[in-house]
Amino acid sequence: MSNTIILKSRPQGTPKDSNFQFIHEEVPQPGEGEMLLKSRYVSVDPYLRGRMNDAKSYIPPFKVGEPIDSGIVAEVMESKNENFKKGDYVSGRLPWKKELVSDGEGLHKVNPDKAPLSAYLGVLGLTGLTAYLGLMRIGKPEKGETLVVSGAAGAVGSVVGQIGKIMGLRVVGIAGTDEKIELLKKEFGFDVGINYKTTEDMRAALGEACPDGIDIYFDNVGGEISDAVLFHINKFARMVICGAISVYNETSIPKSISVQPFLIKNSALMQGFIVSNYAEHFPEAINALAGWLKEGKLTYEETIVEGFENIPQAFMDLFSGKNKGKMVVKI
Amino acid sequence: MSNTIILKSRPQGTPKDSNFQFIHEEVPQPGEGEMLLKSRYVSVDPYLRGRMNDAKSYIPPFKVGEPIDSGIVAEVMESKNENFKKGDYVSGRLPWKKELVSDGEGLHKVNPDKAPLSAYLGVLGLTGLTAYLGLMRIGKPEKGETLVVSGAAGAVGSVVGQIGKIMGLRVVGIAGTDEKIELLKKEFGFDVGINYKTTEDMRAALGEACPDGIDIYFDNVGGEISDAVLFHINKFARMVICGAISVYNETSIPKSISVQPFLIKNSALMQGFIVSNYAEHFPEAINALAGWLKEGKLTYEETIVEGFENIPQAFMDLFSGKNKGKMVVKI
Repeated sequence: MSNTIILKSRPQGTPKDSNFQFIHEEVPQPGEGEMLLKSRYVSVDPYLRGRMNDAKSYIPPFKVGEPIDSGIVAEVMESKNENFKKGDYVSGRLPWKKELVSDGEGLHKVNPDKAPLSAYLGVLGLTGLTAYLGLMRIGKPEKGETLVVSGAAGAVGSVVGQIGKIMGLRVVGIAGTDEKIELLKKEFGFDVGINYKTTEDMRAALGEACPDGIDIYFDNVGGEISDAVLFHINKFARMVICGAISVYNETSIPKSISVQPFLIKNSALMQGFIVSNYAEHFPEAINALAGWLKEGKLTYEETIVEGFENIPQAFMDLFSGKNKGKMVVKI
Repeated sequence: MSNTIILKSRPQGTPKDSNFQFIHEEVPQPGEGEMLLKSRYVSVDPYLRGRMNDAKSYIPPFKVGEPIDSGIVAEVMESKNENFKKGDYVSGRLPWKKELVSDGEGLHKVNPDKAPLSAYLGVLGLTGLTAYLGLMRIGKPEKGETLVVSGAAGAVGSVVGQIGKIMGLRVVGIAGTDEKIELLKKEFGFDVGINYKTTEDMRAALGEACPDGIDIYFDNVGGEISDAVLFHINKFARMVICGAISVYNETSIPKSISVQPFLIKNSALMQGFIVSNYAEHFPEAINALAGWLKEGKLTYEETIVEGFENIPQAFMDLFSGKNKGKMVVKI
């Protein structure tokens, strides 16, 4: 029975079934200092697409013929490692395997009594950290400013918008279905939601939604939506470039309008954001997020797909926007 | 006899003779607190093109039918202002007039014994300040890094490159004639010069010139040159967006490759730079620049055109790259 998913071939454009292969690998006995883990929740994320290309990026590409890895919450089944005991839950970057042996490096314990296990892959994991640190460290919000979030109903975007509200900002979210727009307003407290798929003129819609211009843009998508934002940025605007899902699958180099004249005119800033550069601020961020979660100021949405065999499909569904909030696979 | 140049009409694309008009305006007698000035040197700069459009920007647009203004060094001919006396030289933003009356607001005295008068419109004026503060405040150079400068033989670019060398950087300059490339290397000490007009593949040429990648890009031009730079930026690269002369005359919205994926991949920063936002740092900058000038570490090139009647032509010549270094008109 297959228990491991490997990258069979590098996707050209949108990933397909044929890029993934299920294989069986023997699970070794844990040696001294090691433990046997069973995967419980697997995170699928848009950034994994970048790692499927054979290109220089902030983390090395996946190798063809080897397992894909991502954020996983696993249960300790057997331990010869003094830091972990049977029954503990751990989280960290692990390969897409049902069971595996680890020496614990890069893993940390998570508490199932404090929050549901899947939250450690989302609002209390890298997604929450990305939202908090991207907004706070690059966006530098000031009360009363206007924040626009693209991919607003996604895992990161929905947390960004809520933190924006906690910080006293006017928050405008962009998403791709009317259902998501409803969610933004009812569930996450956004002031305005714009459905980019049914909006003819995004530039005009943003102008209407942001009467005082845009001070912070938290960008998860790139492409034409980001082009439209540029026309409304204020002096000293900050644009957090966190994702570019709209162009991840393009096989040629994508074009957009030239950003430079807009940056000059407004003394504006655009900065690429990778959460791993801000590791020193993780404790502060987790503290803030867990506090807001407890106080009920922060809520999160997740799409849980069941079954190890559905991991590739869940990943592919990210690109057609089938998820609301964090996409997680329960094993 | 005409003594004033007004904006007759807003240019469409490249400015033409017909956008300017010479008129005669009576020069009033200076009243109490005022003085009579005679213009000696007039600065013409690419950024003035932006002010000729009727568009929101960092300084208000020129009005059709009114005089154009720019940086000017003038001589005090007669003074009823206690801060200035006959024979003083002053510098500041003034209208394109041979003679005019001013109350001294926004003007400061310059010393003709310390440096030639035209230098106060260049290396010791806004150009020098732009080069110094853009590089130091956004570029944040660290010894051993690689700096690429576009428009490198221009007024700002040539100073940026020299400061880069003083800071211990590898400095690569991009310019548009072989003569300018010679100048970059012989006069200004650049390590490498690339003539973008005779180079087939800018991306490859930059790769060769920057074996360790690009840490800082000081951008005066925008467009395709800046696109080529993106392929070579290092992690945490800083791009100072100071000018976009290549697109100032475009009548439609210019397109280029999407910068966002490059910014994400490299955690890189792009920031629009306007020197006037950094006024608090002017004394520090002038101090440093004057010191290097005195020590002979900083040299500058200027193109001096003679005659009030040649101001519009000198301005238009900026866009065909006829100047080397700062373009100044001597009255």
